Amino acid sequence: MNFTSIPDISAEIRAGNLTALSRAITYAESKKEEHQLFAQKLIHELMPYTGKAKRIAITGVPGAGKSTFIESFGMFLIRQNLKVAVLAVDPSSSLSGGSILGDKTRMEDLSKSDQAFIRPTATGGSLGGITARTYEAVLLCEAAGFDVILVETVGVGQSETLVHYITDFFLFLQVSGTGDDLQGIKRGIMEMADVIFLNKTDLYDPKIVQDTKMDMHRSLQFLPSKDSGWKRKILKGSGFANLGIDEVWDKILEYYELIQSNGYFEKMRQEQKLLRIDDYLEELILKKLKQKTVLQKEIEDNREALERDEVTPFEIAQKLIEDNFPSL
Amino acid sequence: MNFTSIPDISAEIRAGNLTALSRAITYAESKKEEHQLFAQKLIHELMPYTGKAKRIAITGVPGAGKSTFIESFGMFLIRQNLKVAVLAVDPSSSLSGGSILGDKTRMEDLSKSDQAFIRPTATGGSLGGITARTYEAVLLCEAAGFDVILVETVGVGQSETLVHYITDFFLFLQVSGTGDDLQGIKRGIMEMADVIFLNKTDLYDPKIVQDTKMDMHRSLQFLPSKDSGWKRKILKGSGFANLGIDEVWDKILEYYELIQSNGYFEKMRQEQKLLRIDDYLEELILKKLKQKTVLQKEIEDNREALERDEVTPFEIAQKLIEDNFPSL
Repeated sequence: MNFTSIPDISAEIRAGNLTALSRAITYAESKKEEHQLFAQKLIHELMPYTGKAKRIAITGVPGAGKSTFIESFGMFLIRQNLKVAVLAVDPSSSLSGGSILGDKTRMEDLSKSDQAFIRPTATGGSLGGITARTYEAVLLCEAAGFDVILVETVGVGQSETLVHYITDFFLFLQVSGTGDDLQGIKRGIMEMADVIFLNKTDLYDPKIVQDTKMDMHRSLQFLPSKDSGWKRKILKGSGFANLGIDEVWDKILEYYELIQSNGYFEKMRQEQKLLRIDDYLEELILKKLKQKTVLQKEIEDNREALERDEVTPFEIAQKLIEDNFPSL
Repeated sequence: MNFTSIPDISAEIRAGNLTALSRAITYAESKKEEHQLFAQKLIHELMPYTGKAKRIAITGVPGAGKSTFIESFGMFLIRQNLKVAVLAVDPSSSLSGGSILGDKTRMEDLSKSDQAFIRPTATGGSLGGITARTYEAVLLCEAAGFDVILVETVGVGQSETLVHYITDFFLFLQVSGTGDDLQGIKRGIMEMADVIFLNKTDLYDPKIVQDTKMDMHRSLQFLPSKDSGWKRKILKGSGFANLGIDEVWDKILEYYELIQSNGYFEKMRQEQKLLRIDDYLEELILKKLKQKTVLQKEIEDNREALERDEVTPFEIAQKLIEDNFPSL
């Protein structure tokens, strides 16, 4: 490590040094336990300087124009004199270890601005890992003085649910007339959404846009109301043509005003911390489980019976737990 | 339960009674522990009658035409005098509990055939649950005499990786010219794919189809070779127009011939069983963990310190494990 101590890197992050911030996130994401522990100690130190940013989740089905929207929205925020961090959650294959391609080319202006920080969070196929690592990235960005943190997900269901639990506000990008392949997922995301932004209106017939908007309004009626007391809104515009971007921000400010006045903000942030404990518990236990070689030996002993179908995988797992975790 | 005993329902399933099969899958998917244990005991009885079907994963990005392909492919298989089960993995939102819409309308002919069985596997947002429950459905369908089991996933990364570990063959549906939003995921799926089927060729200019095929051939060159010794193939055709469907089946048969002669089939199936143990272990431990109220009390004790940011969620989780699982 190039930083001699936690106070050093902590001070650099608080001074807004993006190299230090980037490195700290890398430590948090590292598979090496020493790096993870270093990151967690660092976060402990920085906790008093976290919590002040607006944490916004942005999602949308493939083709909804997320990158272009974030580029426009991010630049808009910078013109409001705000510092913007973009964390892209990447549910990349655990086989390929691939990642969302070229964030620099996806968000060209934003990536050049010194008021912005763009960072993909590689998850290596571990969905549990998504929020854990993204949560740490959020805290670290806050300590580095970012005012708005945009957490981008690919809009395919699972990651949204997790990201929902580490953000305050949920923005769902949609375009007019999409397939029904993701209906089930869409309903779930609609339920989480605080604002639905009908994007790319410059590319569609205004009538189609209007129809889609009406359809959505109808769907919203069937959703349970939000705990925050906020009523879901549908806006329209275009990230590419810079239309309706300011309205999104207005709604976000309105939302924060509401939840800060009705006590929901405090309550939500505390509940989110409690949920993080559960996630870390699972993560740590599973990690330790994998390191436990005694289990591997017992599995090996059962291998032949398993091959001959005399015992099922479930039965072996059940017995292993009875033998090794009597306290559970 | 309407079945007085495991031998009863077991006999019904082996006789091909689809109501019994359906009910057994429901027990396996149930959140009630007694149902789950019933299903697991049933599977224990049926193990000798499992393992004989061809287990085929079918995936594709939204809009790739999966339902229509499966409808055509399934009807083709039925004309070959084969019994076909379709298991649709549904990574539906944990909030909405939604599901893939109307399988009966998605696959009209297939759903009417008495040689076919179509079943969505609801996962209730638990991705770990996908393979666990789908694996049980696969075993139960095999015991009911199905020759081919098609496991359909929505093509968004995570579920494919899991389904990959319970199937023998991986078919990836693509259409010409799709966005690059899912590039990273696509690479991972390409890596798992045994055959890539360029679908909807009847809708595209042959030149564009040819270009896409060439592009794909190029991408394949950069992928590591498969452990099975099989070389990935790219085919084209149309589920809707019934083009190229027979070739897909030819390649599947060719694939099985290869892996049955080179020993990969046996090895793969055994490894998959071992992986199942790991999954069940995780699942059971996490379930027990959630029931453990002593942890909740400790969390409650730390709540104020957490609110004041004197301790992080990670630190609480770490301490809980040290205190409660000294054996780990």
